[in-house]
Amino acid sequence: MNIKMTIEYDGSGFCGWQRQNNQRTVQGEVEKLLKKFFNQPITIDGSGRTDSGVHSMGQVATFKSNGSFAPEKLKLIMNRLLPKDIFIKELDEVDLDFHGRYSAKKKKYIYKIDRSEDRSVFTRKHYCHYTKPLNLEAMKEATKFFIGEHDFTAFRAKGSGNINPVREVYEINFQEEGNFLEIEFIGNGFLYKMVRIMVATLLDVGTGKLEPADIADIIISKDRDRAKKTAPPEGLYLAEVYY
Amino acid sequence: MNIKMTIEYDGSGFCGWQRQNNQRTVQGEVEKLLKKFFNQPITIDGSGRTDSGVHSMGQVATFKSNGSFAPEKLKLIMNRLLPKDIFIKELDEVDLDFHGRYSAKKKKYIYKIDRSEDRSVFTRKHYCHYTKPLNLEAMKEATKFFIGEHDFTAFRAKGSGNINPVREVYEINFQEEGNFLEIEFIGNGFLYKMVRIMVATLLDVGTGKLEPADIADIIISKDRDRAKKTAPPEGLYLAEVYY
Repeated sequence: MNIKMTIEYDGSGFCGWQRQNNQRTVQGEVEKLLKKFFNQPITIDGSGRTDSGVHSMGQVATFKSNGSFAPEKLKLIMNRLLPKDIFIKELDEVDLDFHGRYSAKKKKYIYKIDRSEDRSVFTRKHYCHYTKPLNLEAMKEATKFFIGEHDFTAFRAKGSGNINPVREVYEINFQEEGNFLEIEFIGNGFLYKMVRIMVATLLDVGTGKLEPADIADIIISKDRDRAKKTAPPEGLYLAEVYY
Repeated sequence: MNIKMTIEYDGSGFCGWQRQNNQRTVQGEVEKLLKKFFNQPITIDGSGRTDSGVHSMGQVATFKSNGSFAPEKLKLIMNRLLPKDIFIKELDEVDLDFHGRYSAKKKKYIYKIDRSEDRSVFTRKHYCHYTKPLNLEAMKEATKFFIGEHDFTAFRAKGSGNINPVREVYEINFQEEGNFLEIEFIGNGFLYKMVRIMVATLLDVGTGKLEPADIADIIISKDRDRAKKTAPPEGLYLAEVYY
């Protein structure tokens, strides 16, 4: 059987998605439980990694098993036994050639910002706290330059290997509600820390440090030193993976 | 100088408000910082205790100091040095006879309930997750019996000593937004765990286990065994203290 899981997690208590020795990770916790259930090591293939502190509303992972079981039942048992900061939203049998990473076509990330003047003890792990005044119109204008297929070398963290740096960004949307701002990114994929670097650059546009058109220059430059900052992980959510 | 602080805290990381040896408490953390600042032990007087896991949007505490300093400056420094789960919202000089506990006239508590079908990794520390269908009209009807001055012996936890069990409840209000329900309690004071016991009893009315008028019976009975349950701490917020 090939099983597809859609997984929600609160990233604040994890050293990211990927299994690591002696670190608490989401993949590690899920595999540990599956090993108990199936009495053998199980490897799950996530749609991609998320960094330490980054959350998920819709990470997808697949695994293969020889056992025969009712997916709905496994889901119930897992949600009872998993730590409270992981929740399996869906668990279904899928075609054998379906793969969490290779089959992914599009991804949606959401970045949440709390613009309240005071820091909040309640939002601190799930929003980026940002107090500088922002020109949202300029930020929206700037997003136009991200849309489309580009070489995003300037917007990926160093140490991400020599993966093809060309990605297509389909949509960037803003949602405001009171002091809360959400920026939604949809693309065919995102490079290492690319969303957080785009957010930091958009915030620089919002404060007037950069002009919207500077985004085009930075992309063309392929120079990571032009897009220096990385927005903090606590605001970032992997929201959906499309297949 | 007599100083009044209004303190917000995320109760999920604390063994409650009150200072205890070898336990992380809000009072303990604030006093530890004040001791560093004033180079001598400082005792703060909170408006009352909150239990392990219970939050505050508006706990008030006072302390006296011989030093002379600008309150606004102390507030800034404290908010920079305090752990991220404590925030001083206000810090002002007040009359010498003002006291965090003895001067309190009224308190407001809010109890937050997440009625979503699935448990949420994001709300788990700040809402009580409750999935049974609720008859809100019956619950609202039931609150009428709490309003007024009553002997609330049936609604206080054992081990709360022989404090006068008479309290006056002024208002109980409901707010619904999507899957979220908030119940607000305003009274001249609340006994140990009284709000959480009232909430659990109201939920029993909501599910039909109790009739609204049973509340009157339970109050008159002064029998704690009639109001058996206590709602979990993660939904409870000390919202405001009135002087």
